[in-house]
Amino acid sequence: MVDLRSDTVTLPTDDMRQAMASAEVGDDVYGEDPTVKRLEETAASLLGKEAGLFVPSGTMGNQIAVLTHTARGEEVILDAEAHIYFYEVGAPALLAGVQTRPVPGLLSADGPELLKSSLRPVDIHFPHTSLLCLENTFNRGGGTILPPATMAEFYSIAQERGLKVHVDGARIFNAAVGLGIDVKELAKHCDSLMFCLSKGLAAPVGSLLVGTREFIDRARKYRKALGGGMRQAGCLAAAGLVALNSIDRLAQDHANARRLAEGLAKLPGLQVDLDKVQTNIAVIEVTGQQTAAEIVQLLFERGVKCGTFGPSSIRMVTHKDVSAEDIEYALQVAEEVVG
Amino acid sequence: MVDLRSDTVTLPTDDMRQAMASAEVGDDVYGEDPTVKRLEETAASLLGKEAGLFVPSGTMGNQIAVLTHTARGEEVILDAEAHIYFYEVGAPALLAGVQTRPVPGLLSADGPELLKSSLRPVDIHFPHTSLLCLENTFNRGGGTILPPATMAEFYSIAQERGLKVHVDGARIFNAAVGLGIDVKELAKHCDSLMFCLSKGLAAPVGSLLVGTREFIDRARKYRKALGGGMRQAGCLAAAGLVALNSIDRLAQDHANARRLAEGLAKLPGLQVDLDKVQTNIAVIEVTGQQTAAEIVQLLFERGVKCGTFGPSSIRMVTHKDVSAEDIEYALQVAEEVVG
Amino acid sequence: MVDLRSDTVTLPTDDMRQAMASAEVGDDVYGEDPTVKRLEETAASLLGKEAGLFVPSGTMGNQIAVLTHTARGEEVILDAEAHIYFYEVGAPALLAGVQTRPVPGLLSADGPELLKSSLRPVDIHFPHTSLLCLENTFNRGGGTILPPATMAEFYSIAQERGLKVHVDGARIFNAAVGLGIDVKELAKHCDSLMFCLSKGLAAPVGSLLVGTREFIDRARKYRKALGGGMRQAGCLAAAGLVALNSIDRLAQDHANARRLAEGLAKLPGLQVDLDKVQTNIAVIEVTGQQTAAEIVQLLFERGVKCGTFGPSSIRMVTHKDVSAEDIEYALQVAEEVVG
Amino acid sequence: MVDLRSDTVTLPTDDMRQAMASAEVGDDVYGEDPTVKRLEETAASLLGKEAGLFVPSGTMGNQIAVLTHTARGEEVILDAEAHIYFYEVGAPALLAGVQTRPVPGLLSADGPELLKSSLRPVDIHFPHTSLLCLENTFNRGGGTILPPATMAEFYSIAQERGLKVHVDGARIFNAAVGLGIDVKELAKHCDSLMFCLSKGLAAPVGSLLVGTREFIDRARKYRKALGGGMRQAGCLAAAGLVALNSIDRLAQDHANARRLAEGLAKLPGLQVDLDKVQTNIAVIEVTGQQTAAEIVQLLFERGVKCGTFGPSSIRMVTHKDVSAEDIEYALQVAEEVVG
Repeated sequence: MVDLRSDTVTLPTDDMRQAMASAEVGDDVYGEDPTVKRLEETAASLLGKEAGLFVPSGTMGNQIAVLTHTARGEEVILDAEAHIYFYEVGAPALLAGVQTRPVPGLLSADGPELLKSSLRPVDIHFPHTSLLCLENTFNRGGGTILPPATMAEFYSIAQERGLKVHVDGARIFNAAVGLGIDVKELAKHCDSLMFCLSKGLAAPVGSLLVGTREFIDRARKYRKALGGGMRQAGCLAAAGLVALNSIDRLAQDHANARRLAEGLAKLPGLQVDLDKVQTNIAVIEVTGQQTAAEIVQLLFERGVKCGTFGPSSIRMVTHKDVSAEDIEYALQVAEEVVG
Repeated sequence: MVDLRSDTVTLPTDDMRQAMASAEVGDDVYGEDPTVKRLEETAASLLGKEAGLFVPSGTMGNQIAVLTHTARGEEVILDAEAHIYFYEVGAPALLAGVQTRPVPGLLSADGPELLKSSLRPVDIHFPHTSLLCLENTFNRGGGTILPPATMAEFYSIAQERGLKVHVDGARIFNAAVGLGIDVKELAKHCDSLMFCLSKGLAAPVGSLLVGTREFIDRARKYRKALGGGMRQAGCLAAAGLVALNSIDRLAQDHANARRLAEGLAKLPGLQVDLDKVQTNIAVIEVTGQQTAAEIVQLLFERGVKCGTFGPSSIRMVTHKDVSAEDIEYALQVAEEVVG
Repeated sequence: MVDLRSDTVTLPTDDMRQAMASAEVGDDVYGEDPTVKRLEETAASLLGKEAGLFVPSGTMGNQIAVLTHTARGEEVILDAEAHIYFYEVGAPALLAGVQTRPVPGLLSADGPELLKSSLRPVDIHFPHTSLLCLENTFNRGGGTILPPATMAEFYSIAQERGLKVHVDGARIFNAAVGLGIDVKELAKHCDSLMFCLSKGLAAPVGSLLVGTREFIDRARKYRKALGGGMRQAGCLAAAGLVALNSIDRLAQDHANARRLAEGLAKLPGLQVDLDKVQTNIAVIEVTGQQTAAEIVQLLFERGVKCGTFGPSSIRMVTHKDVSAEDIEYALQVAEEVVG
Repeated sequence: MVDLRSDTVTLPTDDMRQAMASAEVGDDVYGEDPTVKRLEETAASLLGKEAGLFVPSGTMGNQIAVLTHTARGEEVILDAEAHIYFYEVGAPALLAGVQTRPVPGLLSADGPELLKSSLRPVDIHFPHTSLLCLENTFNRGGGTILPPATMAEFYSIAQERGLKVHVDGARIFNAAVGLGIDVKELAKHCDSLMFCLSKGLAAPVGSLLVGTREFIDRARKYRKALGGGMRQAGCLAAAGLVALNSIDRLAQDHANARRLAEGLAKLPGLQVDLDKVQTNIAVIEVTGQQTAAEIVQLLFERGVKCGTFGPSSIRMVTHKDVSAEDIEYALQVAEEVVG
């Protein structure tokens, strides 16, 4: 099976398993797990922030950021397709009591202008807007990268207007690798950032939230309230530390995604916006007689797993457990079943 | 002063004041205020629903409906310019813990199709969608009417998909008078509806929420929790009963709005989509050298109050306390200051 | 009928009705209702605070105070029988997302010591405690008064520990009249206070929240979100202004309550702690063969309304619409039916 | 160091580490982690319930239960010292919007009677009470056991009154081992139960929530919203499966706790209610000149860690990483420093 559904399916490496087995651990709720501490410090340093917090999932990292940056009843601006709004079960309203204000097209070069026109004046009818959430890379955008210049523009407007900026950077290393820059160049344009150790980095479980020391101290209490305080979490953190050594490997996933996208773009009945294939995600438009669901099913029957992405699109994601040979196989199968 | 800012500024009539002064009242939290009871029954009967609940404001009526129809963590679909989403201080998230899903263009003939494509399949990442909120007339649409046929389409889709439908009918009588139909023809296509006694009907305070008996029983408890349980509320209800006798008068407001809109449309530098002037609201686009804010200020200096409605629009609202002569005066002033 | 169930049943006086009929009003959401403004200023000045906010009920006033003083997830300390905890439909958790920490016996001379021992150290497992709610007079305590000295002690501890103090002063004027002091002597020991115009003061609808200007500004926005923003609310405020002229009349209610309590205390099968009959409430313990519910029913059949107050207690409340003669009648009936 | 602070400090065994290193894993958000599935099924079967859900902490398991059993605005009855109320950061109000109603002494033989008298009639002022939370063993009670007969009484009252029952069974196996009964005899008297794999069972991370299939299906969605959905969680689950083989070992912890308690009870200045030392927790009252904090400090300086448990109490907890020899050492040190 070639599993292109998501990079969340990556399996831990032998090195990670070994690290888990031998990790030095303690009770992290008491602040006594040395491996968790090391991971949090490593993550903060890597992103150029003061402090880090280990959390069991990207969703929790994002939701803790929303809780920590806002007061109940406030408003959060984000893209109409942002993961925090689209895929996190309505948690900003459920947990933080904040209204999400989705702006179509926000995560684009036009975003800073759209942000400006979305900000409302002070009025008793309007909630106070206190947070802007960005996403980099942008999952539902097809893994597209928000470049440092655009992030800087966003951050500058936000600071002028008194908004905090949180980045859902589940795949921030894909962005950095895709641009060939230090991830700090992206992370410096925000107040907090969450990134995942699972997904492309292949750790089994866990994400990091980074920001100022003061922010992380308050975030830690929300983590406890959400039930994210884990005991001997060093077992997981040990795998996470190994994962952070494999960032460069993401370039291979990007090459694979491009090869895949270019191959599929040549097939009749399929269309791919190659400009948007910037990292490890390819979104394929189905333009022929077959429906997206039919193609997904035919690929599945031949051993290639992927998913629909709306009624007439398919999403394919490359990752550690998909090799260059797997890509060739997938292309060959696609050629047979499409059209 | 000719006050065209909103129909919320209407002053109570002498009849209403007299009714307030002589109302038979009791403790409504104990269910012992006969005038409140009469108003609730009258309202329910007028709208063709089983029961009614008197509330101090339209916002409270809408929010109680959201609370009563949903469970925390669910999703509410509404227009991206709906009052509940735009003007109610983020209350759906704050009070009910529900995520609003604003759909641009929902309150239009295309709305039912947009609703269908906005509904997402069951998936662990998506909140359960349980409520559709409509608005009739549509304030930020310029007082436009959602006709019974469109409401029926919405309701039919909603029922098929297991959604409840609440109508923010703050100005539902403007819609009925504008169409020349019994308001029941609109109200039958929903599970609950809120309408205001203030605004065009000119009562000083109060709105009604109507629906099934069972719905209103549960709504009553939420009203108590929000602090909307009032004691000798019959004083206000008495004015509300008088207000319900003046529904036909709204036709005059509509005629005034049309006269105003047609007059303004002729002025250079202004543009009015006359098709959208369907009730007592006129939205004027400013297309000349002046800004909307400048025109509003110049009108104000000559005794005509109105407000901007976005950066290049002005909104004018007619109501009981604006006469046909006032409209002529406003037009005369506009002619002088615009251009 | 002699209605001793609660002072909430008081009917508006002719003066109030006249005031409502002739009130100068405007749109209070626009800050243009002169009568509401006058009432808010009068109330603030009477209590010695900077600003006031007119709200439709005592519950709303209390809940707005909780919302304004706290952040979500914090803890509020109050008496285990406090109205805010016992009678407000769980609103602190529903609306503000705060945990109530009820302390048995808090509203007593021992209260300040109990407060101290209830405050927990900083620990990741404990919510931050940010608010102390007092109640004066104390309804479930039997209308007992918290004297200025005790309030001062509470306030001093609270300030030391960084807690705000809100007073549910629904019947604060009963406390002031009972002590024969200026109400400011009580109100100075808190950050905010809510008092009711209905109840003993007999206005039909409405309560006031008072505090600093900055506090009231923020509270006003929460009032809007809860749906407490009313349009021509001056109609109600006018009655409220009249009500504030009748504060001295409460002394008569207190005399009636005492006469009633002393009379009932002499009956076999009833027991009254006369030390606790400090204002307009009498709580009667039923110690004979009859149950409290039976006695309430027998009194009702003879034209005297009151309510049980737990399984073996009865509560009677005196007010404007109960005369000294009514009290004698009630005593006579009680003598006949009890025992 | 002899660490008696809590059984949460237990380190994973070599078997667990080996199991983590070799676990068969998959993406559990897609329902594809075989080890997680096996753990969930094993847990459900062990407790006699239909289904199980793996969560990263006991707090999350408890809070998901509260979310799943209640609607916002409802009331939850629990002991005034219950972990859910005392140690979970106010999460029931923050996350679920429910009011906790703490009842002193609930977790005792008198509990069922206290429950009855705490339940309030239907009244518009009272929140609906929908959930009873028990805790077994009872942490702040000193690790005391709630026997099956008392649990049966609670459950019977709850069912009569329409309440659900959730058991915080973080240490339910200590209760079962302490009573020498099958844990099913305890678990059958509730609708849901949470137990921890960490604590006495020594797994590094994780707890299980068990209940009906329908309950767990709804709980799973709340887990996702809280950020508790983990990817290759089988790494942790594998250690959990090993942990479930070590339940019998808890008897040794109980014997150690008893030996410790009996030894300390003999020291001047200390007092221990030996009847309450039923499992692996001993609470020691300090009655001499020294304060609890002083004794804790002196023990710490000699290599024995424990914590205060209120101003004049100390709590000691035995567990896998404290041997019988460690207990003797702790007693010897205590003899030297106390008095």
